[in-house]
Amino acid sequence: MYDQLIGNIKELVPITEDESKLIQKLFEPVSLKKKQFLLQSGEYSNHMRFISEGCVKLFSIDELGAEHILQFGISGWWINDLYAYLTQKPATFFIQAITQSTVMQIHRDRLNDLFDKIHMMDRFFRIKTQNGYVALQERTINNMSQSAEQRYLEFIGRYRDIEQQIPQYMLASYLGVTPEHLSTIRKNLRDY
Amino acid sequence: MYDQLIGNIKELVPITEDESKLIQKLFEPVSLKKKQFLLQSGEYSNHMRFISEGCVKLFSIDELGAEHILQFGISGWWINDLYAYLTQKPATFFIQAITQSTVMQIHRDRLNDLFDKIHMMDRFFRIKTQNGYVALQERTINNMSQSAEQRYLEFIGRYRDIEQQIPQYMLASYLGVTPEHLSTIRKNLRDY
Repeated sequence: MYDQLIGNIKELVPITEDESKLIQKLFEPVSLKKKQFLLQSGEYSNHMRFISEGCVKLFSIDELGAEHILQFGISGWWINDLYAYLTQKPATFFIQAITQSTVMQIHRDRLNDLFDKIHMMDRFFRIKTQNGYVALQERTINNMSQSAEQRYLEFIGRYRDIEQQIPQYMLASYLGVTPEHLSTIRKNLRDY
Repeated sequence: MYDQLIGNIKELVPITEDESKLIQKLFEPVSLKKKQFLLQSGEYSNHMRFISEGCVKLFSIDELGAEHILQFGISGWWINDLYAYLTQKPATFFIQAITQSTVMQIHRDRLNDLFDKIHMMDRFFRIKTQNGYVALQERTINNMSQSAEQRYLEFIGRYRDIEQQIPQYMLASYLGVTPEHLSTIRKNLRDY
């Protein structure tokens, strides 16, 4: 669990043995049962979160009660309502476990201490956030310019690991189509 | 010009007088005439860019030739095809001046040197990217869940400075509606 977290950091930046130990001391594991919430809209998000095991979703619920999935997260990914975390305002998103999951989390105050002590932690989160920004930008532009079928193909090309772990109606929500529409798209692609 | 850039950095992180001087030495001003391109799709984006004066747009063109505006940038904002910059692959976006503009830019290699020399530069771009991520996330979720009228109201509430500098057809492209639809929305709001 801790090895995976440290490995995730070392993939991007060099850290010393002492720094690894300090980081490990400040992260805490949280176990989630299937469908359990890690964060609910209206709550405060005071932790940065790394998914060690399982699969979770980040979503919002609109005025009509419809769920909009903004992001899935699987083992090795970071997930958060970053706006709530950064602004210390109540969350507008929900984070919920899709399968039994383990999340490693660090409190904002501890993480800010780490940023002061370890230059490479600032760099790590700079790079992680840049990568996340780019992925989100691509998604935004695809939503504007691509058909539902193109978006589906792009998703399975990129996130094959995720597709196998989530129910189809959740993928439909992520792609912004109805489950019936997704089902038709999949059928057409099979027949093609 | 340089004061504005340094001021923008100092708003978020502390830097010393020597560090300011080093930073200033590595950024170069670029003047753009109205409609001039700073970056075109297919080119390499080797610079990080700060808008010192004027107004620019970041957009893509889809297979049918339609323009999709992902972001506007005005004085005091950073703008880039971040994917192209980070991956060193050819740009998929265009950056074009809407009005006569001045951009301060730094080459990737110089910026990486700065990251090694000045811890606070890693922090500055971490925070800037986090803020950008949050704004983009909100836009993505709004595109999924809000009506065109709600998106318009949100935009003018947040970016009043930009609305005054750009033609209406560009704002329509950013909002993902036709210029005629935007015109109807504005008329309905006036009459309301």
